[in-house]
Amino acid sequence: MSLWFWQEIQELSRQAELMPVNLNLPSAAPVRGAVLTTLVAGLKSSGTADMVIARLAETARTAAVFTQNAFAAAPVTVAKEQLLANQGRVRALLINSGNANAGTGQPGITMAQGHCQALATALSIPENSVLPFSTGVIGQLLPDDIMRGGIERGAQTLASASELELSQWVDASRGIMTTDTQPKLTSQIVTINGQTVTITGMSKGAGMIQPNMATMLSYIFTDAAIDDADLEKALHAAVDVSFNAITVDSDTSTNDACVLVATGVGEALNSSQPEWSVFMEALNRVCRDLAQAIIRDAEGATKFITVKVTGGESIAECKLVGYSIANSPLVKTAMFASDANVGRLLMAIGKAGVESLDASKVTVSLGDVVAFKEAGIADGYTEARGAAVLAEAEIDVIVDLARGDASASIYTCDLSHDYVSINADYRS
Amino acid sequence: MSLWFWQEIQELSRQAELMPVNLNLPSAAPVRGAVLTTLVAGLKSSGTADMVIARLAETARTAAVFTQNAFAAAPVTVAKEQLLANQGRVRALLINSGNANAGTGQPGITMAQGHCQALATALSIPENSVLPFSTGVIGQLLPDDIMRGGIERGAQTLASASELELSQWVDASRGIMTTDTQPKLTSQIVTINGQTVTITGMSKGAGMIQPNMATMLSYIFTDAAIDDADLEKALHAAVDVSFNAITVDSDTSTNDACVLVATGVGEALNSSQPEWSVFMEALNRVCRDLAQAIIRDAEGATKFITVKVTGGESIAECKLVGYSIANSPLVKTAMFASDANVGRLLMAIGKAGVESLDASKVTVSLGDVVAFKEAGIADGYTEARGAAVLAEAEIDVIVDLARGDASASIYTCDLSHDYVSINADYRS
Repeated sequence: MSLWFWQEIQELSRQAELMPVNLNLPSAAPVRGAVLTTLVAGLKSSGTADMVIARLAETARTAAVFTQNAFAAAPVTVAKEQLLANQGRVRALLINSGNANAGTGQPGITMAQGHCQALATALSIPENSVLPFSTGVIGQLLPDDIMRGGIERGAQTLASASELELSQWVDASRGIMTTDTQPKLTSQIVTINGQTVTITGMSKGAGMIQPNMATMLSYIFTDAAIDDADLEKALHAAVDVSFNAITVDSDTSTNDACVLVATGVGEALNSSQPEWSVFMEALNRVCRDLAQAIIRDAEGATKFITVKVTGGESIAECKLVGYSIANSPLVKTAMFASDANVGRLLMAIGKAGVESLDASKVTVSLGDVVAFKEAGIADGYTEARGAAVLAEAEIDVIVDLARGDASASIYTCDLSHDYVSINADYRS
Repeated sequence: MSLWFWQEIQELSRQAELMPVNLNLPSAAPVRGAVLTTLVAGLKSSGTADMVIARLAETARTAAVFTQNAFAAAPVTVAKEQLLANQGRVRALLINSGNANAGTGQPGITMAQGHCQALATALSIPENSVLPFSTGVIGQLLPDDIMRGGIERGAQTLASASELELSQWVDASRGIMTTDTQPKLTSQIVTINGQTVTITGMSKGAGMIQPNMATMLSYIFTDAAIDDADLEKALHAAVDVSFNAITVDSDTSTNDACVLVATGVGEALNSSQPEWSVFMEALNRVCRDLAQAIIRDAEGATKFITVKVTGGESIAECKLVGYSIANSPLVKTAMFASDANVGRLLMAIGKAGVESLDASKVTVSLGDVVAFKEAGIADGYTEARGAAVLAEAEIDVIVDLARGDASASIYTCDLSHDYVSINADYRS
């Protein structure tokens, strides 16, 4: 099962001719209580899969976080409305790639509502129980007939589909892709009170990535039964250290969403149990692995960079410094060139806007090599030692602010010629 | 005089094999009360000019603004100290390129102080009357002997140098260059009360450009006599709409400085005169032309982009939206590709963080072509019409927020393969 999955991934990667940086997610498993179907509705000119429909058990509870972009897309607006109306009792997810239904005004919203209704009717589930998600080109209306045709065919397939088929999950992780070179699908399976709890997540996204509150499209499913309040809490905690700690290019999409579904067909869990921490650890792991996978597969990435900021007065200021480094085009190009340009790191720390930062106390290390300390280049540091660290595909940049106990890690990639090529040619 | 200058510029541009975008500054004129010398001290491996010394008349008054980067370089710290000590009675500027003397701690500061003292002695001017400026690679100590040798030779040349030699100014504008492909030197000559007032400015900078308070290295000289308070006021007003309204890559240098010298040998001016507005208009023009020249010569730039944001509640929020667009890698790569990707503009407006922005009221135009209006693609807009605007080398992006009367323009460039090449290879 796992082997077949990896052969598929390798094949796809070869086709794309762009190689992610050490993207090796552990194997994936299906989740009870959710059935998925993936199809070619006809939205992508490439003729590849562009629609995914997930049907959820009646017991399912769903929490979601969305982009904070003021130009939030029509499906984001509609998904929020639906969630309010159904109070987390979501019975289906309707996801399309190839067209973001963003910047489309009221016609876009009306269309997304109509598609949700069409799917609800076709699946015989309550009105308002469908959440829509779109990703792809911004500023074009969805082709209504293509969407409705896809919804009809998808619902028919789901009528005879069974649970626990891994291929459904692999296909879905591919169906939500846009400029990703690889599907991103991963699972954690833990035993709680003698029962197996499965958490499986999938993400898409390779550019326009600096989530703010939520991120790109990520769907995490578990078969556990979890109440609304705990589900919200779990999602926010996990997103904070995963999807809200990555950046490719500082750009926040209009369509970002991260959804956590507890299908409720398995073990009942709540946050007052001691076993909750086992669940949270596994959920965090799934989210962190997917978030890092997005960076590993980021547009043009040749390096995976962890910026770890310690000694801050707050997590917020550690993230401020981390993002300032991770988003600096000059730092990112230096990383691409394996150029141990400590000056650019200092520049990025210094411009972050940390109140009354004492620059003379800051220590900067590249991996194990201390590069800058006590207001000057560290004793024994040489550019050759720095460059040796940066020549690796996995780079740790460690900044100690030496003014408190808080820390945070931000994950990012370098800025290469391929980033420019991919984004200059995206639609041509 | 002017012709010779342009031949020189064209020659240099050909050598660099990188072409700025329509960089045509009006001709330059020397300023009475300042004598400049430019030499090869030996800091640059290219063997080109890397030191500029300006000797100022006893009547000169100087104001300056500096980077807000927490890792401000040693010369920034020393220049601020000297300005406090001499109260704007500056008698010489000591500028080197090739080494930024940044991230060098106390040794760097001690060295900059020593070099200022050496120049003061060599020129027989008061202690503390020299301001130091450095630009180039960060994190390396200045070679002391090379600097002192240069100072000695420069001072000897100045001893016999005359005023009003244009070649001094052309050479100086070249001596402060790092990755610039062209020198940036421009003048405005106005008549005030029947007297000729000359304002001549020079700038360097092509990357690590998003000034915060001040910018890169810019030196503006006028022969007018202006008191300290008016000089400060004039500098801040001019910088606000010029150097503080540009961005190449969102990165703020550790060494940014902008200096305004009134040599005081000519017409006396003060801000209560009606003629002050004539002076300010000319000063603003010099600063705006230089600021725009930096963008036109920005690393890898193929397009000059003006992002004009109108209808804001404040200038600050207009700048916020302008910089969000101007710094977005996805907008910049789309501009490079002449891709009329309105969605990326909406994304950048939406992520800017303007409080309670009503996205449905926002209008976005490309040049004269209205692309987005009333929450949807504008009537009659086609991608072909948008692409025709973006195919030009000069692009206006106009955003109307429709919530107030404030407006601001931000000047920027596209993000091309050459930006990555230049910054991945800078030091190799």
